[in-house]
Amino acid sequence: MFIIGELINGMYKQVGRAIAEKDKKVIQDLAKRQVEAGARALDVNCGPLSKNPLSDMQWLVETIQEVVDVSLSLDSTKPDVIEAGLKLVKQKAVINSTSADQEKLDKLLPMANKYKTYLIGLSLDKKGVPQDKDRRIELAATIAAAAQDASFPVEDLLLDPVVLPVNVAQAQGINVIEAIREFKLLTSPAPKVIVGLSNVSQGTCERNLINRIFLVMAIGAGLDSAILDPLDKELMNSLIAAELILNKQIYCDSFLDAYRKK
Amino acid sequence: MFIIGELINGMYKQVGRAIAEKDKKVIQDLAKRQVEAGARALDVNCGPLSKNPLSDMQWLVETIQEVVDVSLSLDSTKPDVIEAGLKLVKQKAVINSTSADQEKLDKLLPMANKYKTYLIGLSLDKKGVPQDKDRRIELAATIAAAAQDASFPVEDLLLDPVVLPVNVAQAQGINVIEAIREFKLLTSPAPKVIVGLSNVSQGTCERNLINRIFLVMAIGAGLDSAILDPLDKELMNSLIAAELILNKQIYCDSFLDAYRKK
Repeated sequence: MFIIGELINGMYKQVGRAIAEKDKKVIQDLAKRQVEAGARALDVNCGPLSKNPLSDMQWLVETIQEVVDVSLSLDSTKPDVIEAGLKLVKQKAVINSTSADQEKLDKLLPMANKYKTYLIGLSLDKKGVPQDKDRRIELAATIAAAAQDASFPVEDLLLDPVVLPVNVAQAQGINVIEAIREFKLLTSPAPKVIVGLSNVSQGTCERNLINRIFLVMAIGAGLDSAILDPLDKELMNSLIAAELILNKQIYCDSFLDAYRKK
Repeated sequence: MFIIGELINGMYKQVGRAIAEKDKKVIQDLAKRQVEAGARALDVNCGPLSKNPLSDMQWLVETIQEVVDVSLSLDSTKPDVIEAGLKLVKQKAVINSTSADQEKLDKLLPMANKYKTYLIGLSLDKKGVPQDKDRRIELAATIAAAAQDASFPVEDLLLDPVVLPVNVAQAQGINVIEAIREFKLLTSPAPKVIVGLSNVSQGTCERNLINRIFLVMAIGAGLDSAILDPLDKELMNSLIAAELILNKQIYCDSFLDAYRKK
């Protein structure tokens, strides 16, 4: 699993304040702890209150790279904010994200090619998030086709079926799980499939339980990557055990520790 | 999920002793606690040390039925031990189990028809447990075909892909998960699929974690029933959350309690 840590996001109060005050310690601490817990990449989002998102993104990228050497997932709805970060990254980055809208694809696919990044493609468009599986597949196929037209390597494409909260859109859970299975069949080689996990439990009680059970089911359906909270230890244990069962980690009595030490 | 509680099994020391000493309290306590925890049926197995398995099975059935009113899964390799129990059961029973061997099917299918029971069919035969998915499907298809020939209702058939311990047969985990998905396609209406869960973690560290992660993945693949320990609270929470995500339980803030009160 390609685990992207979700915690450096300005929508969290403490992070938003650290960005506003340019408090490196808060950001660097979150970066180190997430990587130690197993994140192979870190999401970087200035948050909705950033007044200077371009310079904030650049400050975040530089601040994080002072302490860890992992991929950064540059998370913004604004392509120029993403590009500001791309100019500074040291490792192969993730563009988070394009939708299936043509004007988004026209901007972000060339950018992904230019900077040789991964690209997250959300199966949604201006009409909103699909309410069934087939529309998810249709939009994912639109993105995959656009990637192929742009000669973007399909194995660097991370298709996201868009997870919705189980308390308001309960029927969508199974649609997302089934979409994961079918996204893998869209191209050859198969695209990678990613989810932004925490959304599934937004507003619910038992958030951690719902997160980890959804994650395990998604891994069983073929999920390759997730944006999640790697500091949730039981979530990470579940992920490691899921990989064990799928024979992607070799069993030993200390398999949980062994995974973390890799 | 049709949950069969596994704890009344003479291989457990305390249960074996209770059977030998005809100590009703131990058995009845286990029966009540498993049903309260969510079991809809109870497995009943005299264990390997029983000297009089026919009368022990009958004593167990009567003892359990004094305190709970659920299905009993009569668990023995000996058809006459199973039939001894069938003569006494009050609710629709489960025969646990037949293999794909013709002589087993020839005995147990007529018995299942006569007593109108569910029948567990293990995808194994005299040659042993399959080491791949295709052989599991072949043996399950043999059982399903024999059931149809015997006019046994396929919706009462519980096909078991045979779970193996992850520490000695790690590659079999994914074969079992995929077999679950494909067993559902063998007949129309689909057969039910069951696993004996605890075997997956036999001899491992982190038994509870491995049990619950395997169960969630199996539920994601279409599992209908499991023989498991309903007193493992985290396992039951995982099962309930899995059903929530598959839209089989309606979300409410107290969904865990709501399930248990049903």
